[in-house]
Amino acid sequence: MSDSAKRNQPSRRQFLSGAAAAGAGAVTAAAAQAASPDPLITEVQEWASATGEGVDATPYGLPVRFENDVVRRNVEWLTADTISSINFTPIHALDGTITPQGCAFERHHSGAIELSKADYRLMINGLVDTPLVFTYADLERFPRENRVHFCECAANTGMEWAGAQLNGVQFTHGMIHNMEYSGVPLRTLLEEAGVQPEGKWVYVEGADASSNGRSIPIEKALDDVLVAFKANGEALRKEHGYPVRLVVPGWEGNMWVKWLRRVEVMDGPVESREETSKYTDTLADGTSRKWTWVMDAKSVITSPSPQAPITHGPGPLVITGLAWSGRGHVTGVDVSTDGGINWTPARLAAPGTDKALTRFYLDHDWDGGEMLLQARARDSSGYVQPTKAQLREVRGENSIYHNNCIQTWWINGKGEAENVEVS
Amino acid sequence: MSDSAKRNQPSRRQFLSGAAAAGAGAVTAAAAQAASPDPLITEVQEWASATGEGVDATPYGLPVRFENDVVRRNVEWLTADTISSINFTPIHALDGTITPQGCAFERHHSGAIELSKADYRLMINGLVDTPLVFTYADLERFPRENRVHFCECAANTGMEWAGAQLNGVQFTHGMIHNMEYSGVPLRTLLEEAGVQPEGKWVYVEGADASSNGRSIPIEKALDDVLVAFKANGEALRKEHGYPVRLVVPGWEGNMWVKWLRRVEVMDGPVESREETSKYTDTLADGTSRKWTWVMDAKSVITSPSPQAPITHGPGPLVITGLAWSGRGHVTGVDVSTDGGINWTPARLAAPGTDKALTRFYLDHDWDGGEMLLQARARDSSGYVQPTKAQLREVRGENSIYHNNCIQTWWINGKGEAENVEVS
Repeated sequence: MSDSAKRNQPSRRQFLSGAAAAGAGAVTAAAAQAASPDPLITEVQEWASATGEGVDATPYGLPVRFENDVVRRNVEWLTADTISSINFTPIHALDGTITPQGCAFERHHSGAIELSKADYRLMINGLVDTPLVFTYADLERFPRENRVHFCECAANTGMEWAGAQLNGVQFTHGMIHNMEYSGVPLRTLLEEAGVQPEGKWVYVEGADASSNGRSIPIEKALDDVLVAFKANGEALRKEHGYPVRLVVPGWEGNMWVKWLRRVEVMDGPVESREETSKYTDTLADGTSRKWTWVMDAKSVITSPSPQAPITHGPGPLVITGLAWSGRGHVTGVDVSTDGGINWTPARLAAPGTDKALTRFYLDHDWDGGEMLLQARARDSSGYVQPTKAQLREVRGENSIYHNNCIQTWWINGKGEAENVEVS
Repeated sequence: MSDSAKRNQPSRRQFLSGAAAAGAGAVTAAAAQAASPDPLITEVQEWASATGEGVDATPYGLPVRFENDVVRRNVEWLTADTISSINFTPIHALDGTITPQGCAFERHHSGAIELSKADYRLMINGLVDTPLVFTYADLERFPRENRVHFCECAANTGMEWAGAQLNGVQFTHGMIHNMEYSGVPLRTLLEEAGVQPEGKWVYVEGADASSNGRSIPIEKALDDVLVAFKANGEALRKEHGYPVRLVVPGWEGNMWVKWLRRVEVMDGPVESREETSKYTDTLADGTSRKWTWVMDAKSVITSPSPQAPITHGPGPLVITGLAWSGRGHVTGVDVSTDGGINWTPARLAAPGTDKALTRFYLDHDWDGGEMLLQARARDSSGYVQPTKAQLREVRGENSIYHNNCIQTWWINGKGEAENVEVS
């Protein structure tokens, strides 16, 4: 470590804690004000000799090499092979609310297929007055909407039913992303086809081998579902369903069918594999509940967390995380540092919006001791995020899906974080 | 073209125009309802045999190869070499409001430098009680804010002063992007250092060879300026100033200093190269006006446009574009199809927000004839975007910067678009 770096290292803590700037190792006001060449100023100025690279050679830019650990990751034992896999968003390393497509979680059941706009077709059939087949160019001619929504896999946090398992918020809560979608309301296309009175459900399926077919009540299909072709302004990535996917705001990610190829209007649900043997919630008595589409209010602290430990000593610490609700918007988040005994309202970076991620901050003065960190979301329906014990009381421990429990990170005196359970 | 593709081609127009589905070449309701195997249905179902690729091998995803023309582009003759260059956002191909970092315009004066977080330092000096040097880790300990803002180069649309020049909205209006920033208010850091009463300006500079130093009045520095380290949730890309850049909402992009290394509090402006020989507006009489920081209200139709022609016949046409204002938020956008004689209010995809892009749509019934397409923005200050003639009356034709005139695209009967001027 250079002399100047050594001098600089603890300065922040000194200033923040209001300690005298004359403390050992601190950059004192006097030192910084000293006549040039102060070695520290010289070090800063040395950068100015740097001429960088042109950018024309990289017309589509990638993250700088220093950030190449901020990527989607999978959990190898979770699926049998990469044809059916999950890749988790590195939410421990992100801030704000928008998820870049490049590192946004994705789940596929039979690989990410490559389907060109020219080859793309969307069929609407079944109980409609006029069955229709749309090309991609056709879809572009309908009135569009833009909306930011979160997409969360029903299995997000699912491994926690059995106790604190995976040590990293990317793995416990990273089956989520939040993007600005542009597309055509499904309602518009259904109205174009003319839904017949006996049409009470739609069955939606994708063009991949799994087809991933799901039944959706007609009320939702005519409400806020989008047939989307852009995410965060640009075309969907292949693994997010290029060129067209369904956006089903607030409902489990499995219903957001990718490579959308068909919407059939029906008089009842199909009871497909994806809504019977999968994506149902097995209860304590062995029976399963189905049609649990809505993702209930949830929150999690993304930093500090096991992958984002505290790397400094006592004093100012930004505690931050994400909150969301499939039933409306987040109205508040409370943070506890003692495992749920005392709660402090966090600061929302912006007022919560409908079925979208909300970023929260708690500007905390850390005493350097152990903490049991928790966050608890509240939403516009009046719902409050439950504890794991409360969830288990109703649901048992056999479920995989819909675990929206309060998460606990144990912070030790070194600032390291661990996934733990509190009773 | 396959038989089924041929059959499908004109179907959309038929349905949209309400013409009889029995028209030549249309997919009639009867045909689509015919018992399987209808060749069209078979074609659609063929996709379902496709098993895609796993995604684990691409932990940071890139656009699908079909979209590899949606990239930043430069104009070769604009700058002498790539060390000082501009790369334009492909706004003709985007929708929504968020610009992905990978295709977001960037301007650099001496290349994009590579600066690690470990090496990063930010100095605050000059007329302050306590000069400070922050590490990157220090900055992460201050209370953060999240805000979406547009960044527009002062020279955006600058080549249009001399008449209709470049044939593509990417080149006439693509020096703009819009991202969600996370960072620390500059105000917070200045308060930490303690601004002395005689401190009336700050001088901000970057760590690249150009340093790109700019003077900013203390009122703005203490208002909404952010010291940002994330854009759209993730770290800034190298070419956007990794690890830290300044965000100066509503003000010209040149002031959004990248690789920010120093903020000096001063009693007056520096009158640097970037605010004297550059980034001033030469008027008709040869004198120049300076300190024209704010980007006035502006809008442009992104589609149809020269790079995004109409590819279908008469009937429904989505006319869309972007609007923004550095003085507040967009309150409305009017669209004209006859060169400014008649105006129709466009639909805003969402209410305008402070100093951020707003997406607008006009769902138009195109008669297939020629159009002179224009958009005109209004903002919360009551300002209305001017015509090119109105701007020239005040400013002459010698300027490079701050051209926020109404743009005109001439659409011919084939749907092709051209950059033109109307008197």
